[in-house]
Amino acid sequence: MEQINIGLVGFGTVGQALYEVVSSARNAHAAVKRICVRSLDKPRKVQVPAELLTTDAADIVNDPDISLVVEVIDDPEAAYRITCDALRAGKDVVSGNKAMIARHLPELIELQQTTGRALLYDASSCGSIPVIRNLEEYYDNDLLLEVKGILNGSSNYILSRVFDHGEEYADALVRAQKLGFAESDPTHDISGNDSLNKLVIITLHAIGVYVPPKDIFVYGIPTLRAEDIRYAREKGMKIKLVAQVVKLSDAKFTMFVMPEFVAPNRYIYAVDDEYNGVVIRGECYDRQFMFGKGAGGRPTASSLLSDITALRHNYRYEYKKSGFSPRPEYTADVTLKIYARYEHTDLRAGLPWIAVNEEYRCDDYRYAIGEIRLSDLIEAAPLLRADDIFLCNFPRFFADRDD
Amino acid sequence: MEQINIGLVGFGTVGQALYEVVSSARNAHAAVKRICVRSLDKPRKVQVPAELLTTDAADIVNDPDISLVVEVIDDPEAAYRITCDALRAGKDVVSGNKAMIARHLPELIELQQTTGRALLYDASSCGSIPVIRNLEEYYDNDLLLEVKGILNGSSNYILSRVFDHGEEYADALVRAQKLGFAESDPTHDISGNDSLNKLVIITLHAIGVYVPPKDIFVYGIPTLRAEDIRYAREKGMKIKLVAQVVKLSDAKFTMFVMPEFVAPNRYIYAVDDEYNGVVIRGECYDRQFMFGKGAGGRPTASSLLSDITALRHNYRYEYKKSGFSPRPEYTADVTLKIYARYEHTDLRAGLPWIAVNEEYRCDDYRYAIGEIRLSDLIEAAPLLRADDIFLCNFPRFFADRDD
Repeated sequence: MEQINIGLVGFGTVGQALYEVVSSARNAHAAVKRICVRSLDKPRKVQVPAELLTTDAADIVNDPDISLVVEVIDDPEAAYRITCDALRAGKDVVSGNKAMIARHLPELIELQQTTGRALLYDASSCGSIPVIRNLEEYYDNDLLLEVKGILNGSSNYILSRVFDHGEEYADALVRAQKLGFAESDPTHDISGNDSLNKLVIITLHAIGVYVPPKDIFVYGIPTLRAEDIRYAREKGMKIKLVAQVVKLSDAKFTMFVMPEFVAPNRYIYAVDDEYNGVVIRGECYDRQFMFGKGAGGRPTASSLLSDITALRHNYRYEYKKSGFSPRPEYTADVTLKIYARYEHTDLRAGLPWIAVNEEYRCDDYRYAIGEIRLSDLIEAAPLLRADDIFLCNFPRFFADRDD
Repeated sequence: MEQINIGLVGFGTVGQALYEVVSSARNAHAAVKRICVRSLDKPRKVQVPAELLTTDAADIVNDPDISLVVEVIDDPEAAYRITCDALRAGKDVVSGNKAMIARHLPELIELQQTTGRALLYDASSCGSIPVIRNLEEYYDNDLLLEVKGILNGSSNYILSRVFDHGEEYADALVRAQKLGFAESDPTHDISGNDSLNKLVIITLHAIGVYVPPKDIFVYGIPTLRAEDIRYAREKGMKIKLVAQVVKLSDAKFTMFVMPEFVAPNRYIYAVDDEYNGVVIRGECYDRQFMFGKGAGGRPTASSLLSDITALRHNYRYEYKKSGFSPRPEYTADVTLKIYARYEHTDLRAGLPWIAVNEEYRCDDYRYAIGEIRLSDLIEAAPLLRADDIFLCNFPRFFADRDD
């Protein structure tokens, strides 16, 4: 079998792990031929021959011996330029950059068609869990009803330290950073934006529809406080940061990212530490649950390797469901049941509740529990940026749900 | 998209569910054109036009309008004949018949090569969980170390009634039969032979090596008694019927099916009722866990549907790992730690123990716990057919394990 020459762009935790994994997977018949780095003399855990390194991505894109570019840099716009350049230069691309892919999916699909090259990105969603590949290939029919899961390992690690190990939120965050699960700037992880990007990608492969991230409601866990944790504990639940896409009927689906109260009888209740877990629900197979490491260099690298070897066999996403008819439309016109805790920002008066079923007040804070339209939450975005509030979803409460 | 015409062989629970699922999955663009049944006028839950039915499989194999044969009959040898005839007649085949596939894999692989047609059988292993496809496509490298799981829904349902719901073993068996999880003759389910067949298939796709079922140690749960259940409960464990294939080194792997004591911190501990759960362990991704319905008509039918639509896209198993070098060899030359409970059949004296670490005797029965070679258990098969004994494995105890 002919060896495949890889050009690797980015040599951080994931890039270095990939270098090691490619070297140890003998039967992959692949080798890293060139590595594009930002700085040549930065000290690194993994040593490579100096002649492999370059600071110019063009050295990879223009190298005729390189047929495959693996892109694992942080910056989504730089990643997008390199990905486009590589595809146009006739190379296949494997990427783990969810922000880049979520933002540019339509252009990237078109570019694959016009260039005839393939872009694979299973590593972009849920690290080592093969979610995209399974949605694309195995659940390639219109029986799928829902994909729901914990898609961000860092925020789940933090919540797990709080709910399973009794740590303070702030301590858990620091510990996650120390262990390398959370970036030095974990904003995207705890804001829910990382989960949102993955949800956008998953939705295209689950339902065949691309919804730009900016149109989707996302609420994270930065403002989670001891009183919210206490509330969940008293009810025997954990709070998890959950991303979900749910078909409401053949004509409509909704999607959002939001903290959620999770009861012990739910699959995702047991998804602890830096793990990810995805529940796929369908008309016939009921629920499938996939579970695995969602963060860390080596799990991500093993997922990149799967895409690399798939390209050997000319695998490409066919985006079959984009051709389905009828395809459901995205709607935010659904009713959720939420918990809204607040201090100075008056969420009771400030939000257009359909109904408020419970209210609580003490000297330090208040909360309301009631029904509200998802579209109204999207409208209320400026109000919801306040840092003295916290929202949490009660799951499986779609008043307008068909089934 | 052109419609695909299916010839369906077998119209029991799974066949009828498939008929319904194909009808409801609009974008599959598939239709059942002919159905081969044993009896034309047997009353059935699902009604179909009389002209679809035939009692002669040749009406399907020889029909030029039918390009795909789905085979879901019980009898493995009849299924094998029909599968071979269909492949030779230039048709692709989808099958869920694990006994047929486990027995005839080498011939079926060769026949796919000589005819150029494809045989897909993801439904044969773990119902709705896409195990085969993922092992073949996603874990298509030599980083995989172990596949271990609960592969039979009926026996798991019975054990779950006993361990999670406090039922008597005999009552649980009757209940499983009533609910249709266990066949009217559940021998293959509780003997472990059904799990064994699935393990043989999984091993070929996990490691690239075919081991005939007859060479593999299998021990089931027909002789499980109240005293074994009590022993497990006292230790805070459940007993599960577990199938596993484990790489011992680059050169060796072992495999067997056996009841196992499962502690609460294991993924498969939570696999209850008729569910199946599979843990895939690899060098980089640590553990992946897949979980879903392993028994029942509709979950199996949805898996058959995935194979049907895959054939539309010319998907076929490439059996890539069979070409890997080096490929490890199967060995039974490993040491297990087992619990052996007995009454009249003296397992203490009758088995060639390496070491006996614990012994217990009371008026009604005895047990011994100790180390024994797997190869010696295979040798002792005649002795182990006694119905006054029960064996159970202590997991993750390979004295000769490298890692």
